[in-house]
Amino acid sequence: MMKRTVVLLSGGVDSTTTLAVARQRGFETYALTFRYGQRHEAEVEAARRVARALGAARHEVVTIDLRAFGGSALTADIAVPKDRVVADIGKGIPVTYVPARNTIFLSYALAWAEVVGAQDIFIGVSEIDYSGYPDCRPEYIGAYERMANLATKAAVQGQKLKIHTPLIHLSKGDIITMGQSLGVDYALTLSCYDPATDDTACGRCDACTLRRKGFEAAGVADPTRYRVV
Amino acid sequence: MMKRTVVLLSGGVDSTTTLAVARQRGFETYALTFRYGQRHEAEVEAARRVARALGAARHEVVTIDLRAFGGSALTADIAVPKDRVVADIGKGIPVTYVPARNTIFLSYALAWAEVVGAQDIFIGVSEIDYSGYPDCRPEYIGAYERMANLATKAAVQGQKLKIHTPLIHLSKGDIITMGQSLGVDYALTLSCYDPATDDTACGRCDACTLRRKGFEAAGVADPTRYRVV
Repeated sequence: MMKRTVVLLSGGVDSTTTLAVARQRGFETYALTFRYGQRHEAEVEAARRVARALGAARHEVVTIDLRAFGGSALTADIAVPKDRVVADIGKGIPVTYVPARNTIFLSYALAWAEVVGAQDIFIGVSEIDYSGYPDCRPEYIGAYERMANLATKAAVQGQKLKIHTPLIHLSKGDIITMGQSLGVDYALTLSCYDPATDDTACGRCDACTLRRKGFEAAGVADPTRYRVV
Repeated sequence: MMKRTVVLLSGGVDSTTTLAVARQRGFETYALTFRYGQRHEAEVEAARRVARALGAARHEVVTIDLRAFGGSALTADIAVPKDRVVADIGKGIPVTYVPARNTIFLSYALAWAEVVGAQDIFIGVSEIDYSGYPDCRPEYIGAYERMANLATKAAVQGQKLKIHTPLIHLSKGDIITMGQSLGVDYALTLSCYDPATDDTACGRCDACTLRRKGFEAAGVADPTRYRVV
């Protein structure tokens, strides 16, 4: 039987590339997407397209209720910042930061991994071009893994859980180069924090800015449909 | 301004006592309850009664979607075990174990704590009478706290998060004795894994068995309405 892994899949460049890496490493992939806050069906649809294209064994979409707490431009009524230059992205923590987001996402992944008998979780965090989120750093991931190995019945019974971060040291350009070599079709993906109902990207939020820069750095034509060019 | 804390509140004996302890220690309390799996409105209603009686500043009920994953008698279609003797409860991990439950609960608590500016979280876990759940052990809580202190913007900015476990070394009897001294009305609480629609407890699941034993050990009259006596 193929080893199973849970892969966190938002439908953007990073998580899509991560899913391709997990598949290439021989895992049967269980893709996990979250529906939360204001990023709605466009993102979920991108994740569905990607999961299908990359042959995920299962794809679950879990709705989580972070709006009750507020506190982020991605979950509350705060404007997404636009037109910031690359040099400013990653300085400090932006308002698009979602409190404890990766901690919540990994906790659901941990639960699902235990249920399907997976000892591996893939998450597409990068400490380069990481938009200044504390829960994208390797020391955070290491601490999460140590906690997870005390948290579950599986761990108590000796099944060691491993969190894979294949992008952790890669720039956006490197990620796209790697994904190209794995045959990823980035036209399926969506990165924008503020997509229109026709799925076009705003071209101006931090996620669009980093995405554009990544395609430029990789020397790959950007397949994104931007509203503002 | 009073220091704020998030308190995980299921509406059972342990979390209710924990909320009373947090209040006694001078915190403004933000009570957090989860609606998940088959334990439904009876549990949530108990939590609402308790939050009101113990003067919580806010009470949020968050719905979480663990049934998509299955894997537990509390979230999937597996029978809750009945009539086990106390000596057998805590030997091994029962089918009522919910994968990564406290990890998910604490992750939402961490998010809410950050949003309301709380540096403290209270959780009513006990390593005594703990039903054999790995995520009730002190080493797990310690690892969670270390991870949390790397996870958030608040932590990166130097606000240290503390997870309080005031019941960790207490038996159910000790917990009830302490709650009595704090004026807790346990008639408001609900522990049963399998309550009837009229809120009566089954009297036979592990939670009922431990609860009965606790009142006996504390020498306190048990206010619970059991279906089976």
